[in-house]
Amino acid sequence: MIIGIVNGPNLNLTGIREPSIYGSIGFDEYLGTLRHLYPGVEIEYHQSNVEGELINYIHDLGLRATGILINAGAYTHTSIAVADAIAAFPSKAIEIHLSNLGRREDFRHHSYLTKVCIGTIMGLGLEGYRLGIEYFLSITQSHIA
Amino acid sequence: MIIGIVNGPNLNLTGIREPSIYGSIGFDEYLGTLRHLYPGVEIEYHQSNVEGELINYIHDLGLRATGILINAGAYTHTSIAVADAIAAFPSKAIEIHLSNLGRREDFRHHSYLTKVCIGTIMGLGLEGYRLGIEYFLSITQSHIA
Amino acid sequence: MIIGIVNGPNLNLTGIREPSIYGSIGFDEYLGTLRHLYPGVEIEYHQSNVEGELINYIHDLGLRATGILINAGAYTHTSIAVADAIAAFPSKAIEIHLSNLGRREDFRHHSYLTKVCIGTIMGLGLEGYRLGIEYFLSITQSHIA
Amino acid sequence: MIIGIVNGPNLNLTGIREPSIYGSIGFDEYLGTLRHLYPGVEIEYHQSNVEGELINYIHDLGLRATGILINAGAYTHTSIAVADAIAAFPSKAIEIHLSNLGRREDFRHHSYLTKVCIGTIMGLGLEGYRLGIEYFLSITQSHIA
Amino acid sequence: MIIGIVNGPNLNLTGIREPSIYGSIGFDEYLGTLRHLYPGVEIEYHQSNVEGELINYIHDLGLRATGILINAGAYTHTSIAVADAIAAFPSKAIEIHLSNLGRREDFRHHSYLTKVCIGTIMGLGLEGYRLGIEYFLSITQSHIA
Amino acid sequence: MIIGIVNGPNLNLTGIREPSIYGSIGFDEYLGTLRHLYPGVEIEYHQSNVEGELINYIHDLGLRATGILINAGAYTHTSIAVADAIAAFPSKAIEIHLSNLGRREDFRHHSYLTKVCIGTIMGLGLEGYRLGIEYFLSITQSHIA
Amino acid sequence: MIIGIVNGPNLNLTGIREPSIYGSIGFDEYLGTLRHLYPGVEIEYHQSNVEGELINYIHDLGLRATGILINAGAYTHTSIAVADAIAAFPSKAIEIHLSNLGRREDFRHHSYLTKVCIGTIMGLGLEGYRLGIEYFLSITQSHIA
Amino acid sequence: MIIGIVNGPNLNLTGIREPSIYGSIGFDEYLGTLRHLYPGVEIEYHQSNVEGELINYIHDLGLRATGILINAGAYTHTSIAVADAIAAFPSKAIEIHLSNLGRREDFRHHSYLTKVCIGTIMGLGLEGYRLGIEYFLSITQSHIA
Amino acid sequence: MIIGIVNGPNLNLTGIREPSIYGSIGFDEYLGTLRHLYPGVEIEYHQSNVEGELINYIHDLGLRATGILINAGAYTHTSIAVADAIAAFPSKAIEIHLSNLGRREDFRHHSYLTKVCIGTIMGLGLEGYRLGIEYFLSITQSHIA
Amino acid sequence: MIIGIVNGPNLNLTGIREPSIYGSIGFDEYLGTLRHLYPGVEIEYHQSNVEGELINYIHDLGLRATGILINAGAYTHTSIAVADAIAAFPSKAIEIHLSNLGRREDFRHHSYLTKVCIGTIMGLGLEGYRLGIEYFLSITQSHIA
Amino acid sequence: MIIGIVNGPNLNLTGIREPSIYGSIGFDEYLGTLRHLYPGVEIEYHQSNVEGELINYIHDLGLRATGILINAGAYTHTSIAVADAIAAFPSKAIEIHLSNLGRREDFRHHSYLTKVCIGTIMGLGLEGYRLGIEYFLSITQSHIA
Amino acid sequence: MIIGIVNGPNLNLTGIREPSIYGSIGFDEYLGTLRHLYPGVEIEYHQSNVEGELINYIHDLGLRATGILINAGAYTHTSIAVADAIAAFPSKAIEIHLSNLGRREDFRHHSYLTKVCIGTIMGLGLEGYRLGIEYFLSITQSHIA
Repeated sequence: MIIGIVNGPNLNLTGIREPSIYGSIGFDEYLGTLRHLYPGVEIEYHQSNVEGELINYIHDLGLRATGILINAGAYTHTSIAVADAIAAFPSKAIEIHLSNLGRREDFRHHSYLTKVCIGTIMGLGLEGYRLGIEYFLSITQSHIA
Repeated sequence: MIIGIVNGPNLNLTGIREPSIYGSIGFDEYLGTLRHLYPGVEIEYHQSNVEGELINYIHDLGLRATGILINAGAYTHTSIAVADAIAAFPSKAIEIHLSNLGRREDFRHHSYLTKVCIGTIMGLGLEGYRLGIEYFLSITQSHIA
Repeated sequence: MIIGIVNGPNLNLTGIREPSIYGSIGFDEYLGTLRHLYPGVEIEYHQSNVEGELINYIHDLGLRATGILINAGAYTHTSIAVADAIAAFPSKAIEIHLSNLGRREDFRHHSYLTKVCIGTIMGLGLEGYRLGIEYFLSITQSHIA
Repeated sequence: MIIGIVNGPNLNLTGIREPSIYGSIGFDEYLGTLRHLYPGVEIEYHQSNVEGELINYIHDLGLRATGILINAGAYTHTSIAVADAIAAFPSKAIEIHLSNLGRREDFRHHSYLTKVCIGTIMGLGLEGYRLGIEYFLSITQSHIA
Repeated sequence: MIIGIVNGPNLNLTGIREPSIYGSIGFDEYLGTLRHLYPGVEIEYHQSNVEGELINYIHDLGLRATGILINAGAYTHTSIAVADAIAAFPSKAIEIHLSNLGRREDFRHHSYLTKVCIGTIMGLGLEGYRLGIEYFLSITQSHIA
Repeated sequence: MIIGIVNGPNLNLTGIREPSIYGSIGFDEYLGTLRHLYPGVEIEYHQSNVEGELINYIHDLGLRATGILINAGAYTHTSIAVADAIAAFPSKAIEIHLSNLGRREDFRHHSYLTKVCIGTIMGLGLEGYRLGIEYFLSITQSHIA
Repeated sequence: MIIGIVNGPNLNLTGIREPSIYGSIGFDEYLGTLRHLYPGVEIEYHQSNVEGELINYIHDLGLRATGILINAGAYTHTSIAVADAIAAFPSKAIEIHLSNLGRREDFRHHSYLTKVCIGTIMGLGLEGYRLGIEYFLSITQSHIA
Repeated sequence: MIIGIVNGPNLNLTGIREPSIYGSIGFDEYLGTLRHLYPGVEIEYHQSNVEGELINYIHDLGLRATGILINAGAYTHTSIAVADAIAAFPSKAIEIHLSNLGRREDFRHHSYLTKVCIGTIMGLGLEGYRLGIEYFLSITQSHIA
Repeated sequence: MIIGIVNGPNLNLTGIREPSIYGSIGFDEYLGTLRHLYPGVEIEYHQSNVEGELINYIHDLGLRATGILINAGAYTHTSIAVADAIAAFPSKAIEIHLSNLGRREDFRHHSYLTKVCIGTIMGLGLEGYRLGIEYFLSITQSHIA
Repeated sequence: MIIGIVNGPNLNLTGIREPSIYGSIGFDEYLGTLRHLYPGVEIEYHQSNVEGELINYIHDLGLRATGILINAGAYTHTSIAVADAIAAFPSKAIEIHLSNLGRREDFRHHSYLTKVCIGTIMGLGLEGYRLGIEYFLSITQSHIA
Repeated sequence: MIIGIVNGPNLNLTGIREPSIYGSIGFDEYLGTLRHLYPGVEIEYHQSNVEGELINYIHDLGLRATGILINAGAYTHTSIAVADAIAAFPSKAIEIHLSNLGRREDFRHHSYLTKVCIGTIMGLGLEGYRLGIEYFLSITQSHIA
Repeated sequence: MIIGIVNGPNLNLTGIREPSIYGSIGFDEYLGTLRHLYPGVEIEYHQSNVEGELINYIHDLGLRATGILINAGAYTHTSIAVADAIAAFPSKAIEIHLSNLGRREDFRHHSYLTKVCIGTIMGLGLEGYRLGIEYFLSITQSHIA
């Protein structure tokens, strides 16, 4: 079982940038924790600041992964192109956001990705990625539809 | 450890109303499953079609519960009063939605509750409530901030 | 044959409040006239100022009545929750308004209910309720589709 | 007693065009039914695709008819000129629409005619015209104001 | 010297319709007064309720007249087509309105014609037409540019 | 002389909720102060979190009280129904707000109640209620119109 | 018979500033022409760049003049205060603009003054002032209402 | 094979009006070229300045022609009625515009016709009509879907 | 104890202008009443039609007065500069309006001043100034916070 | 004669992604057909998911090609940068879209590219590219301007 | 070489008002520094709280100065009249703001002055004035265009 | 002392593209001039058409440079991601624009970057970069705060 995590622009600074918003744990450190918690899941991780590379990762994962956890960062609010990439593989992706976008600037209240994803987990910090994996595990074992 | 679940208008019809949107499992049946999965958590459940009664439940739970999972149904989009009730107890509530509101009418794209909740879990069906409980368990055991 | 009439907030003042807009006949008096005109129709009447109670009436009537005549008063313009209750029982309700909302404040020009009702009869005073009954009689006797 | 029915653009295609929206009965056939049901009413019928000709019909009927049933089709949403023609003869016209405009495109949600008509009957199919005649009969016999 | 007066929809009712807005003098009567006051000016008068016929009149007058006084009535606010017709003959037309549109409904505050006309005379009643003729006389005799 | 005070949702938390916004004195304590200051005035107090119950209180007080001081809390911004209830009894109510709504979220800048009240006293804390009583006393003794 | 002309900001530059928009004749020169053409009319002229001084002029003229020709320049689009001053003396003022505002920036398309003036003469250059005087002469001699 | 060309208001002036926008070739002259280039296609041509007549042409061609090339001129932006006429005959019409509407006024950026046509060819001058014929020829010979 | 009253444009006409809106008592007369009622308060009064002079008065009073009662008239809705002047002296001013702005034109529904004042008293006529003085007396004697 | 085709994000999935919208023929297969039909034209093809690479292609082709057919996919609606690149080489590019954007989401109704291209061909599927080549051939042979 | 500095409302409080936004150096003190740094430049300084006086200063400087540094304070956002005064003297003025308006209220994000000035220097504190002088020196010595 | 200059899309065409807007000097030539004028400053220059590469440059410079001069070209108006990169390094960047954006299309009037930069220098051509360097020199030598 493959789960792809795709992180967008500036998320390479997590743990460094604005810790009051994004927390102080770097993503690489967290990735170790996740892989430790879910040894049966192959977690592929990609980050890029380039919109088109995110699209390339989604095209690739869309054909191979059970699920995608996409945190497109600022492209969430501006990229129809990333949304179109996700739409090409229905019911594959969950939208993740570390912070509660409802508390931030107005231009972060709209997401082009929401509609093309299965659902959204927002504001729960890095824990959001773990809950996304929980979801894919749960529906694969299908005890709850 | 008490977790309060507060469901808003028309959610008493879950399992009956529009199954293509809300699924075919009634909430009472699902509540049994949840309590079975988390025996160490006391899950209190309230549903009402009356906005003011939801406020009363939140006032009561705000003082006693570790966390609140609030699915305010249609009041999500129209009730500043419910949002104010949640705001009186910071970092207590997670906003849950069964369906992906991003795929529905425009007037369901805005939530007065998002800003006053810790975060949102949307579009993951009844599984969203379970993930909410997972979150409160996780931060209580605080291995991930 | 059961027809439910559900009247919303402040309509208990009909015949008292602002007669230049709502006329001077109280609804109870009019109800007698209606029952006299249509002896073969069982007309159930409910009024409440509480949004959630209107939802309860609709849930109840949705399962039993041939048709519902809903005049949600001011909730017409603010209540997605009442609209969702109606939507759970497709092709059951006609939206009634005593006054011509097009002549009143801008915020009365939009109705959340219109889309989920079969249709609307507006501006024809209390006569609107009678025409609604005529409609249900007519389509039941199905001489016009 | 004269009742004028004025139908606007494309309504000459009723029974032909998009039967899922407008039904499959042609207006001429329905007109026969109406005249049969109300032998005491002289029903004048006009249809045109030209906005200015609708205005001419209204000018003419405004001076002679007891009531006008106006279904201006697409001009409902774009014609201030037709609305002005109706406004010249207060309390003469009822606005009729076959389909429930609330379920269609946003640009069909606004009507320039509503404000200048007595009221609106919408979404009840061809039956809407009959209910309009019922209204004029009823207020003429004035047993209900 | 030819001055064309082109009046739009419902202006055939001037003197009849809503005298509190449009005054009680019919346009034909006023036309006699105008011709009497300006014997050296050939005043051509056209009125139609049909948008396309107004366009035809403008096409015709655009090639022959010194000036056009256009009161397009309700088409002022909705007709790009009439504006395009005027634009084909630059510096030919003055926009006239009997009433002060700034005191009426919001949808009468915008005119598609203003930009393509030389200028506007509004709210001065029938006197507006006379002032328009004064303007064309004045610039023809060119003592003021 | 009867003055009714009607407080809306979450105002039962005054003195508890967000003291930086609402102050730290509970309303019951303040009510004692008020009654002490104005012994000749019968001050009736009602609070509810249910929109429809506020309507019921207004219907009742509208017929009996000299004046109503209404602080509808969050319903100020969302309830046309409460505004309609007030409108049924012209020149009866003054709108009170503890905090200066102009300094808070945009959605608190609009009030449905303003138009139907005599006036507004906002941002002056609990003192606003006292000034409202002063107003009714003053106009009753009518030394200033 | 007194006619007041009140010119607003930057109109002291007429004949100097942007001649392609405002022409090349200074206002003082034009004023001589006007007084020559209408010897029986006492034409008072005021210009100021200060909004409040325009208000003072209007207060003064409102009590003494038969008519006011007001060209408030840029204050046309921003000054409710000037409009209020005009509104205090109903049916006294005509709004004049040298240029056709419909051809200029969007923010020049709205005038706070239109509603409170009798009417508007726009785009006809300095000739607009003469036509305004013609209007007041005409209605005073009342041969046309 | 019949192809109908329907041209709207002011297009009778093509070759005369504003040649910098519309070119200097009259449509009749161009029509000769087209018929010469495609001798196997029967090209029917209609132009009118009257909205309702365009609707009549579309009703007629909708039943007989293989394809319609519709350049509705200014009605493109204002006529829901013309769009409804096209919608009655799905997959029949291509929307043509001589000029690039994206470079012109904002009100020309929206077309009611786009949605109900197969597609749009814009800004390519008279050549647009020829490409439209090419399209219908190509899909009829169906070597490209 | 100094209280400054600063009145804006056109308020010099109070008692003269539109008495149905502003009442028939001139402000000077009322000022006498106020000074009589509160002999221990030094009431300074300034009125100007010039926006910049209001700013000058506020700068002066901001350094000397206990409180300012500012009724900026029409500048309420257009003057960021007056609001900035008030903001320079926090917790000094109360915004007063004679009329209920909620019942008047839309452009009077927004106030730049509200946010920078302590609070607002609106719609209570001249009595509003007295209540403002009561407020400053009350908080100075601080029996209510 | 060189014609450049520049395809934007996700168009590498054509023939794979959502065939009901984009058809089932891959672009490479179609390119073969095009080159076969127009042997005298050198067709250069570029596709990228990276916005900046599309800009690079346009900079390169702008200096060498006779014409550019640009289908910028989702960047059509979000990229001012791509539009600026096109604007640097006036009269070089035609905007192509496979689907009829007027039938899709609102955010696809606006194109930053339209204004800077010669024109648009939309909704005609892959055939749109062939018609674009036809256009460049035609104007090069200049028998129609 | 004359450089005029024109400061608008409330800037007489610089160094006093809200030092966290505007700094703590008074403008007079800074003016000394500037004159010291650029002895070859005659720096004229004007400040007024009256909009019309700013216009007078600009009219005067426009004819005499090499450049104008205009910081219109709050009038930046509300005064078309000041912008018109600047527009009368093209390529004369640079817009200066002490604070970064992008970080402040929305109504400070729009400037009527930007379009009519050469350019803008914003957010760089008092240093902005010095850079403006540098610009005029540099282009006068024209080593960079 | 390191100053980074980061130029965005299409700025590689400066001196080539649209010289009436951007001038005719290429950036490389200008860079030589700048380095010559400020020998004590190490000026690093980066240009890219790829949004994500701009982000990479900012991440790199944010840690090393004293200041960044960012001209993000068209990404100014569309890229929240570039703004987020700047925000990660507070008080580091000044926003530069060659042209006066206030004179160009509406969509160039909003900048996502303004808020996260220290300030903006706009419309002063290439000179803007020099003034930016002046600013960093000045505050480093801190004779003006």
